[in-house]
Amino acid sequence: MYTTAAALAVQTHAAARPIDHACRRAHVYSRRHVQTLHVQLQERSYPILIGPGLLARASSFAQLTAGAVLIVSNTTVAPLYLPALAGTLAGAQGGRRVIPVVLPDGEIHKTLANAARVIDVLVANRLARDCAVVALGGGVIGDLAGFAAACYQRGVAFVQVPTTLLAQVDSSVGGKTGVNHVGGKNLIGAFHQPCLVVADTDTLATLPPRELRAGLAEVIKHGLLGDAVLFAWLEQNMEALLAREPQALAHVIRRSCEIKAAIVGRDEREQGERALLNLGHTFGHAIESATGYRTWLHGEAVGAGLVMAAALSHEAGLLPAADAQRVARLVARAGLPARAADVSAAAALEHMRIDKKIRDGQLRLILLRAVGEAFLTADYPPSALQRTLQAHCA
Amino acid sequence: MYTTAAALAVQTHAAARPIDHACRRAHVYSRRHVQTLHVQLQERSYPILIGPGLLARASSFAQLTAGAVLIVSNTTVAPLYLPALAGTLAGAQGGRRVIPVVLPDGEIHKTLANAARVIDVLVANRLARDCAVVALGGGVIGDLAGFAAACYQRGVAFVQVPTTLLAQVDSSVGGKTGVNHVGGKNLIGAFHQPCLVVADTDTLATLPPRELRAGLAEVIKHGLLGDAVLFAWLEQNMEALLAREPQALAHVIRRSCEIKAAIVGRDEREQGERALLNLGHTFGHAIESATGYRTWLHGEAVGAGLVMAAALSHEAGLLPAADAQRVARLVARAGLPARAADVSAAAALEHMRIDKKIRDGQLRLILLRAVGEAFLTADYPPSALQRTLQAHCA
Repeated sequence: MYTTAAALAVQTHAAARPIDHACRRAHVYSRRHVQTLHVQLQERSYPILIGPGLLARASSFAQLTAGAVLIVSNTTVAPLYLPALAGTLAGAQGGRRVIPVVLPDGEIHKTLANAARVIDVLVANRLARDCAVVALGGGVIGDLAGFAAACYQRGVAFVQVPTTLLAQVDSSVGGKTGVNHVGGKNLIGAFHQPCLVVADTDTLATLPPRELRAGLAEVIKHGLLGDAVLFAWLEQNMEALLAREPQALAHVIRRSCEIKAAIVGRDEREQGERALLNLGHTFGHAIESATGYRTWLHGEAVGAGLVMAAALSHEAGLLPAADAQRVARLVARAGLPARAADVSAAAALEHMRIDKKIRDGQLRLILLRAVGEAFLTADYPPSALQRTLQAHCA
Repeated sequence: MYTTAAALAVQTHAAARPIDHACRRAHVYSRRHVQTLHVQLQERSYPILIGPGLLARASSFAQLTAGAVLIVSNTTVAPLYLPALAGTLAGAQGGRRVIPVVLPDGEIHKTLANAARVIDVLVANRLARDCAVVALGGGVIGDLAGFAAACYQRGVAFVQVPTTLLAQVDSSVGGKTGVNHVGGKNLIGAFHQPCLVVADTDTLATLPPRELRAGLAEVIKHGLLGDAVLFAWLEQNMEALLAREPQALAHVIRRSCEIKAAIVGRDEREQGERALLNLGHTFGHAIESATGYRTWLHGEAVGAGLVMAAALSHEAGLLPAADAQRVARLVARAGLPARAADVSAAAALEHMRIDKKIRDGQLRLILLRAVGEAFLTADYPPSALQRTLQAHCA
């Protein structure tokens, strides 16, 4: 039960004029519902393909000219999709060299040591600068493989084949790559844009429910930071998403990629506007870091982080209580935690301090003026942050 | 005994018109001979200061706004210059936080593990994205510290304070950073431009003779690849350089930075022309790699590599024998080895194959058409490469 696709198109286009200029749909294969968006970054521009069955279709990778590819995946995803993708990339005549690297699954394995392991395989196989690294998996694999691609020979081609909702709506787009440090998340990384993103929506069929919900946190974030129409659509259609209705999922993937691609196209290196995409993330990273990346999925921590960002915005007198409640309600309906019961407020604050967004010693946060309107600020009462953490942490 | 500075200026400017457009001297402090060049890279442009006494002068770092700096140095250079530099950077009132990291000295320590160690110190001290990493040392320290700066929080400000001739004429300019892999040199790295280069020529007084000679290899390279006038000047003034006459050293530092800055300004990411700066380096890297980075200094390997590149150019029928002999003679006069007696021809070839310049399986090399004219090509007889290696290796 969700609004029809035609109605959606009208809604989102009406609301999204400032965003759409940076995206254009080159092809719409009506039969198989493949959509193509473009991230516009001059010589680093690239297409995002969204649709079913893309993994197994040679045409998805037609633009890839690399003579050899390294596929980086994990022990969960590889058994499901690596053989098909490797076959597609090898080509009908098996003309392309395809080398797999399978890492253990989980955020705890997003380490410099594992990025170095990927580079070791690139070196051991003598892959030259004209090779490509292909990430097959969720955000962890995409971030880690992208960082290895950024560093190997000072940068080789990189392709994202995201297989989780979170990666399809967020992490595979925009070129942020990196690994975690024991002192904080993504403290080691690079900006390295992919040359192609292939989001095969069929892969969501095998996604565990918890991972699906984690991905929805980033979709809620996209609505909250810049598209009130998307946020309202989510309030109407959350059940369709949780039931994995294909059209509903395709809609939020496309809309999320459009929003993110537009922002990245205007501010690739996070000099300004791009920081808005961190809404909820400073809280979320602190939760993940304080719990050693072991118990919370990234998207779950972002879900709680969105609730905290809205609560702080209200505490600071910026956001009406009703809007903060809308956020908490939608996050709850997505089946995401709204509190961090296993992290003390003091520990959360401590971990927030190492966050990359500190400048001149002052912690800058993305706060909300309304649903659909976020901004970066260090101008909030420290006591409001304290109260927010005390209310949402242990 | 070398040509006077005035004559030089005429000579080099007459020869260097295509290069000079990308450099401009903003200030010439006649009293203390400080020269300022500019690397023109749009928003990533930066000045290179060259002159005596710069380390200890606050004005050298006037443009640095970072609230905290990490100085990366090694056990050889730190005792000589770290206290002075730390004092300068801390400021008269000690208002800026300055944290030192001292690594062991030598190419063998240019590893991912040591880059990670630098990042560990950045994290442990909670340095935020607005910090700066300052490299105090030669090429190894500059490359490693630059790579750490590139990766920490996806890139923080980076300042080069080169203390060797090689670093002052070459490696501190241009933004190539990286560390070695057991499988090859600089296989892990990033393009990350410094925001400032401070080349204090007084530091060359403490440079061991062997390091001075190693630096001259890169100066010879700059003449050979694009400035026949510089090459001829070196043939006339090699003794003055070996005797460390300040004006002679200042001349080759400035001219080398001009040549390199101009090329980098036109081709930052080595899509084309910048590859010329690798003249002699594919041979040189193979020598270093085959000997485990233990016995050869980088500049020594480049010296032998220049001789080999010239010899191959002659073997391939591209360069007159007399020009190849000029190269061998000048390298010898600089006190640099012209042969790799401790590397077999087979091992050298094997190590050349992992070089970053392979494309479509064909090893591309920088060869010479004349002194002052280099070009990138894969179009040479493999047998000529074999003969060259057999003549110059064990």
